[in-house]
Amino acid sequence: MQSPICAMLGIEFPLLAFSHCRDVVVAVSKAGGMGVFGAAALPPERLEEELAWIDAHIGGRPYGVDLIVPNSFAGKGEAASSGAAQIPESHLKFAADLLGRFDVDASGLETAMEARQSFGDNMHEEGAARLLEVAFRHPIKLIANALGVPPPLMLELGKRHNVPVAALVGTRDHALAQVRAGVDILVVAGGEAGGHCGEVATMVLVPEVAAALDAIGDTTPILAAGGIVTGRQMAAAMAMGAHGAWTGSVWLTTAEAETNPVVKEKLLAASARDTVRSKSRTGKPSRQLRSPWTDAWEAEGAPKPLPMPLQSLVSEPALRKVDKLAEGGHEGAKALATYWVGQGVGLMNEAMGAGQVVQAFKQDWIVACERLNGFLEE
Amino acid sequence: MQSPICAMLGIEFPLLAFSHCRDVVVAVSKAGGMGVFGAAALPPERLEEELAWIDAHIGGRPYGVDLIVPNSFAGKGEAASSGAAQIPESHLKFAADLLGRFDVDASGLETAMEARQSFGDNMHEEGAARLLEVAFRHPIKLIANALGVPPPLMLELGKRHNVPVAALVGTRDHALAQVRAGVDILVVAGGEAGGHCGEVATMVLVPEVAAALDAIGDTTPILAAGGIVTGRQMAAAMAMGAHGAWTGSVWLTTAEAETNPVVKEKLLAASARDTVRSKSRTGKPSRQLRSPWTDAWEAEGAPKPLPMPLQSLVSEPALRKVDKLAEGGHEGAKALATYWVGQGVGLMNEAMGAGQVVQAFKQDWIVACERLNGFLEE
Repeated sequence: MQSPICAMLGIEFPLLAFSHCRDVVVAVSKAGGMGVFGAAALPPERLEEELAWIDAHIGGRPYGVDLIVPNSFAGKGEAASSGAAQIPESHLKFAADLLGRFDVDASGLETAMEARQSFGDNMHEEGAARLLEVAFRHPIKLIANALGVPPPLMLELGKRHNVPVAALVGTRDHALAQVRAGVDILVVAGGEAGGHCGEVATMVLVPEVAAALDAIGDTTPILAAGGIVTGRQMAAAMAMGAHGAWTGSVWLTTAEAETNPVVKEKLLAASARDTVRSKSRTGKPSRQLRSPWTDAWEAEGAPKPLPMPLQSLVSEPALRKVDKLAEGGHEGAKALATYWVGQGVGLMNEAMGAGQVVQAFKQDWIVACERLNGFLEE
Repeated sequence: MQSPICAMLGIEFPLLAFSHCRDVVVAVSKAGGMGVFGAAALPPERLEEELAWIDAHIGGRPYGVDLIVPNSFAGKGEAASSGAAQIPESHLKFAADLLGRFDVDASGLETAMEARQSFGDNMHEEGAARLLEVAFRHPIKLIANALGVPPPLMLELGKRHNVPVAALVGTRDHALAQVRAGVDILVVAGGEAGGHCGEVATMVLVPEVAAALDAIGDTTPILAAGGIVTGRQMAAAMAMGAHGAWTGSVWLTTAEAETNPVVKEKLLAASARDTVRSKSRTGKPSRQLRSPWTDAWEAEGAPKPLPMPLQSLVSEPALRKVDKLAEGGHEGAKALATYWVGQGVGLMNEAMGAGQVVQAFKQDWIVACERLNGFLEE
């Protein structure tokens, strides 16, 4: 396809797949798109293992790595200290009581919390630097930052290794700031996206950013994100000024994904109304599948979510436990189980292989293009 | 253009323009789209005047009329009683204090509230019936209901006069319910729309509804709405399954629109982030330009908005007064002034004539289509 994204990344079809599952990354890259491995939650030695596995299986196809190094979070600039000590008792009690109402035993969560600390560490520049060092030892073709302007080290390493740097933005002003900072690709993400997201919808944000770049004569290519789970939506975004699409949710229900089977089933059954944008998981607004867990944190009288990354130290150990029990058939845990997903979940109704999804995108893209041309036929 | 919307409505370009300004309706229809006159807030005799003026100026071009007859509101099924008596003192005091903080004199608002009663009356079936009677005395080519399933009388009159009935929907399930009820055109409105709106974004809702209709073999045409203020967005929605677009916000800044000049200026300067979805104006969630007025109602401790149509009896007299003072240069009123608008306001940066906007849509549609085809060129 004639897109600057294809030229820049050496791929056939400008569809990028963010996934925490190495199998998805490999399958998408092999099918002509590009898998981007979400490394934010991993310690460096695990990232090394995962990337080595990808290198051994991807057959030389290009792939990328995604980190989260936000501009603001609790303890930024401090030495990575024990976040667990900063969690108020009220939050722990609220989470434990909520689990209790669904017959989920809340004991042992504090220990799990300590283990989660690497997530918080990776957001600090030192932690991120260790992940970057690992990533650049591998033949990656893209490095992405999922929240805010990439740290100078990421931009510097990208330049040194000739690897494009991508950054997610949720507003026009952030897009302009990123371009000034020197990113090579903008991932323009609407508020319907799964995970961290802004409030402006993809339908507005993509043309708004495209127009803002045009106005300053900037040609940084745009990947549209937010709600995109089909080729027709990808084509729509590209008609409005994007040069390809960045996707995440759609891979969660693929055969390769390690998504909890209970959550997978819930995702396939969900409609577009079944998501909520809430601070309750990470401390920053992120879109996720609604469940009694998210409802409780959104209800009146619930404790206010802690700043990133502290809220994750409350939510992640609890939801990991919920996931494990849900997989074992525990009814209360099945009810509580949730995961990040965008509104596009309403269009995800069939489990497919990840390579198959790429092919479906290609076909649907063509159908959408023909459909549009059809309106002009005599 | 080859669209079932064009065939059904007898127009060239499937762009519908919702407006309370008769001049906009006339200009859009004359330019090849279709103006739809928003009649909800008018007493029947005023509607008669407005439609007579349109008939005299539109040169036989097709136009439509839009009402709001919601399925649920305070006092539905009761004789239209004085709503004003049902307003709690706390709400009136909150509004008056808020105006006071911006040096706007809040006296006389109760009288204005009584005058607003016709808006509430029009939402009752008897009130709506009087408006429908007026509308069908004129050569309208479309009747639309802006909230919920159209009342049986609207569907019956549409059928009898051979006038298509359109209805706005914000969810897949509502779309299916409307189709079962017998509407002829679905206006599928994403959460980025101005005025009353749901939560699902246009980018997801349009293909979700299109797929749901396909699945039951239904061919009701779809107008996409929500955030659409340019031809490229219209093309994008049509690539995803829509057959045309329904627009509102984009006409507010046209030369023909009677929008308060202060608000017009604010709209032209606003970015997509400057809107809020709030119950504070009508009692149901509606998207509007953020101002200290909307901020105050959204703030912690603010009174909960009353059910429709009672909240309008609090907000409308106050905001009418604000509008009048703002136009006269009152600084506090200029700050408070707001109006319904979608996130597309971020792309509305230039005042144009309404006919010019239609031409710009046509050109931009073609450019978007060519752009999409360009990705496939060898």
